[in-house]
Amino acid sequence: MPTSSSPRIQHPGLAQKIMSAAEAAALIPAGANIGMSGFTGAGYPKQVPQALAARIEAEHAAGRPFQVNVWTGASTAPELDGALAKVNGIHQRLPFQSDPICRDKINAGEVHYLDIHLSHVAQHAWFGFLGPMQVAVVEVLGILPDGRLIPSAAVGNNKTWLEIADKVILEVNSLPPIEMEGMHDIYYGTAIPPRRQPIHLTQATERIGEPYLRVDPSKVIAVVQTHQRDRDTAFAKPDAVSNQIAAHIIDFLAHEVKVGRLPKNMLPLQSGVGNVANAVLTGLLDGPFDELLGFTEVLQDGMLELIKRGKMTAASATAISLSSEALKDFNEHIAFYRDRIVLRPQEISNHPELVRRLGVIAMNAMIEADIYGNINSTHVMGSAMMNGIGGSGDYARNGYLSFFVTPSVAKGGKVSCIVPMVSHVDHTEHDTQIIVTEQGLADLRGLSPRQRAQVIIDKCAHPDFRPLLQDYFDRARSKGAQHTPHILGEALSWHERCLATGSMLP
Amino acid sequence: MPTSSSPRIQHPGLAQKIMSAAEAAALIPAGANIGMSGFTGAGYPKQVPQALAARIEAEHAAGRPFQVNVWTGASTAPELDGALAKVNGIHQRLPFQSDPICRDKINAGEVHYLDIHLSHVAQHAWFGFLGPMQVAVVEVLGILPDGRLIPSAAVGNNKTWLEIADKVILEVNSLPPIEMEGMHDIYYGTAIPPRRQPIHLTQATERIGEPYLRVDPSKVIAVVQTHQRDRDTAFAKPDAVSNQIAAHIIDFLAHEVKVGRLPKNMLPLQSGVGNVANAVLTGLLDGPFDELLGFTEVLQDGMLELIKRGKMTAASATAISLSSEALKDFNEHIAFYRDRIVLRPQEISNHPELVRRLGVIAMNAMIEADIYGNINSTHVMGSAMMNGIGGSGDYARNGYLSFFVTPSVAKGGKVSCIVPMVSHVDHTEHDTQIIVTEQGLADLRGLSPRQRAQVIIDKCAHPDFRPLLQDYFDRARSKGAQHTPHILGEALSWHERCLATGSMLP
Repeated sequence: MPTSSSPRIQHPGLAQKIMSAAEAAALIPAGANIGMSGFTGAGYPKQVPQALAARIEAEHAAGRPFQVNVWTGASTAPELDGALAKVNGIHQRLPFQSDPICRDKINAGEVHYLDIHLSHVAQHAWFGFLGPMQVAVVEVLGILPDGRLIPSAAVGNNKTWLEIADKVILEVNSLPPIEMEGMHDIYYGTAIPPRRQPIHLTQATERIGEPYLRVDPSKVIAVVQTHQRDRDTAFAKPDAVSNQIAAHIIDFLAHEVKVGRLPKNMLPLQSGVGNVANAVLTGLLDGPFDELLGFTEVLQDGMLELIKRGKMTAASATAISLSSEALKDFNEHIAFYRDRIVLRPQEISNHPELVRRLGVIAMNAMIEADIYGNINSTHVMGSAMMNGIGGSGDYARNGYLSFFVTPSVAKGGKVSCIVPMVSHVDHTEHDTQIIVTEQGLADLRGLSPRQRAQVIIDKCAHPDFRPLLQDYFDRARSKGAQHTPHILGEALSWHERCLATGSMLP
Repeated sequence: MPTSSSPRIQHPGLAQKIMSAAEAAALIPAGANIGMSGFTGAGYPKQVPQALAARIEAEHAAGRPFQVNVWTGASTAPELDGALAKVNGIHQRLPFQSDPICRDKINAGEVHYLDIHLSHVAQHAWFGFLGPMQVAVVEVLGILPDGRLIPSAAVGNNKTWLEIADKVILEVNSLPPIEMEGMHDIYYGTAIPPRRQPIHLTQATERIGEPYLRVDPSKVIAVVQTHQRDRDTAFAKPDAVSNQIAAHIIDFLAHEVKVGRLPKNMLPLQSGVGNVANAVLTGLLDGPFDELLGFTEVLQDGMLELIKRGKMTAASATAISLSSEALKDFNEHIAFYRDRIVLRPQEISNHPELVRRLGVIAMNAMIEADIYGNINSTHVMGSAMMNGIGGSGDYARNGYLSFFVTPSVAKGGKVSCIVPMVSHVDHTEHDTQIIVTEQGLADLRGLSPRQRAQVIIDKCAHPDFRPLLQDYFDRARSKGAQHTPHILGEALSWHERCLATGSMLP
């Protein structure tokens, strides 16, 4: 019989490894590559990272160097990235993060940040491109008698971390409802080339795996009990700008259905994170589409509401990241949602093979676009990392339709989000189909660079910047090569001006 | 009994449609979207485009406007792109071309050029994103009694063009050996989402389709007989620079095998076009690897030689593009090569699903790289189109390993191919793994942008430019945000200087 102190830890051997977070953190060696759970503020370990931060702080106070490399699914929360960055505990961070303290350290040159397509991470770890992983720290909701694990609100790279790590620390979180058991679909059919096989998923919310994570119990060196909720991922109420962006997209999609380029229930939707993306989903609540499907990386309030209201039949994601209010609804109606949501490893949720096969409609936010359709999703003024590319490239390159959305201006109108040349490229002109701001929608399909430029200027630029962009484009067309007309000495001058004066306006 | 005038045209109905190229060209309406065969100077129609050019010239002389939109597999030859561009007959061109006359028209702003990932073209046409296709002009090697077609030296997008075009003109070329029959593998299992299924190809040269192209005979409006060879795609004999690049790559691959990150016969090889790529393949002739496989878009002299010499077991491609000398060998030993080469539609040869599953080792040429690993494959000094992205993005993003190669300098040493910031981005920092010049090899896996910069400067830059790059990087690190340190006012100054003086040297 298990001697567990918690009904959520039913494996006798693992129950014997229950210890405090501080005791567990003491088992992590300096310099370790640590695979942590966590995706968009969901399913991250809540206690061990903070205990590790305390230990690092003490080591530093004693004059001893101590840093670790932190690999996750995607972003986490103050208890993980914030706590470790604050004590200068992170040497290398991958593949995505959004913590303000960690961001400051990255932009101060104190953390080496690797900004990686989210579908690439697990395979690069398996290929050995990132080095060995000494420890995995993974949050789960429970341990079955046979040692299998009930995943948490984010699957992320947990399957891979549990497989490749030398040692494993489990955090068993007793707060999320145990009724989430059965919601996950962990695919164990992956392999390394040349032994890879087709992934037999042909419908967005089909199940192709099993509901539990596997771990070799002999690798588990600690089990830590927690009872703590995920980060409150609150959204701003959609404002006029967001609503206009949503309206442009919905009009466009309705038109595509009308002309027969989309089925009437469309194709599976992917939505990036943030207020604008959330507003687009909210806009679909009153849109003309029914029986929608989701195939996305993170399921947030907007998509949950679509499911709740019956507009969306079901959704596939790798994480659920909700506001307090939506989480309350989720927990109260867990049986309803469990039947309509599938959580997968991110190598599956973001897999190019599947995104292309399913024909996903991708909608992602950006920092800026240039007049030729190149997209900057990550860098402020060319050098400062904002968050990271996340899964946007996985979906934009392989989807059926790809939208990039942003308000036309930022910083109270002083910064144009449509510029002559982007200061960093995350998505090239070859991958961009549709750009949307509150001003309008530019459909770039079938257009050459010069045609694209005129459409983007006309449809997407803010009136304060539109004449300036037109002037740049006209002058660029007056001399030099004309495939992608540019004036190189001016191409980045808007950003230079902004760095000098805080405004792109002349 | 067929009444054909040629043993290669065995379908009686189609034999009745034999006419001259001029008669066939007269059937093409002004403004048509024309899908033509042709991929890297192979398998393009030889006579109808020239007849069409003559007709366009006559129309223009009579004061009547006449242009067409030309969609192909990839590049063609003077008889197609050259002839039509010369008479100002091309309004829009996609998805790739390399003809000097056509390039001049593109860069003069007289042709709208759409530079598209080669794996995207067929599906975008099917989705209706490019508009309707009025006519397809496709070279084949023969017509079977039941109307099925023996494909030519390039499959490209021919399957799709034959399916979606309203009308079809066939050029039956009697010069290439009829024994190529059986070499092709045309996959008819594709569909549009939401009806797409997995593509069941798990080994590079496996056959999953049928050897013939299908066409509805009632759509065929003309059959034109030709007897003419493909463009002579000659290669420069590998020089010292190319040999050094090849040696760096082979050393690296041998090391990857040694440490267990590659099987000893490696993984399927993809090689881009051009002298450097060809030199790398030539280098493998004396390399330590055996039982190689190819999974590439165009099979050129270097890969043919690997097959001939028994170093490569078999190869998959969408086209065979050879020098005169190699073509002679190919024709003389057609039975040998037919058993070892599979030619597929380019949507299959370049398919992200397959490239990722097979774990392709991608090797592509580039124009320039910047110190952070962004790659420019297409634009000279930011505005002038060279050729196009081709399939490099399909392979680089999805492959197991991805190399980008270039000599460290161009224009007799006046232009550095490693620059502070590329003037156009085709492959982002997220997609670049390994950069190689004759100076050395930069392995960027697992590195942050600042780490990458130092490795690229140290390993890849030419000594004439290395101190200048180091100076830029050092000064960029002295102020501003430090994730991707840049000095925006200087980032493109090397290109500006080159445009002004013909040299990047100060």
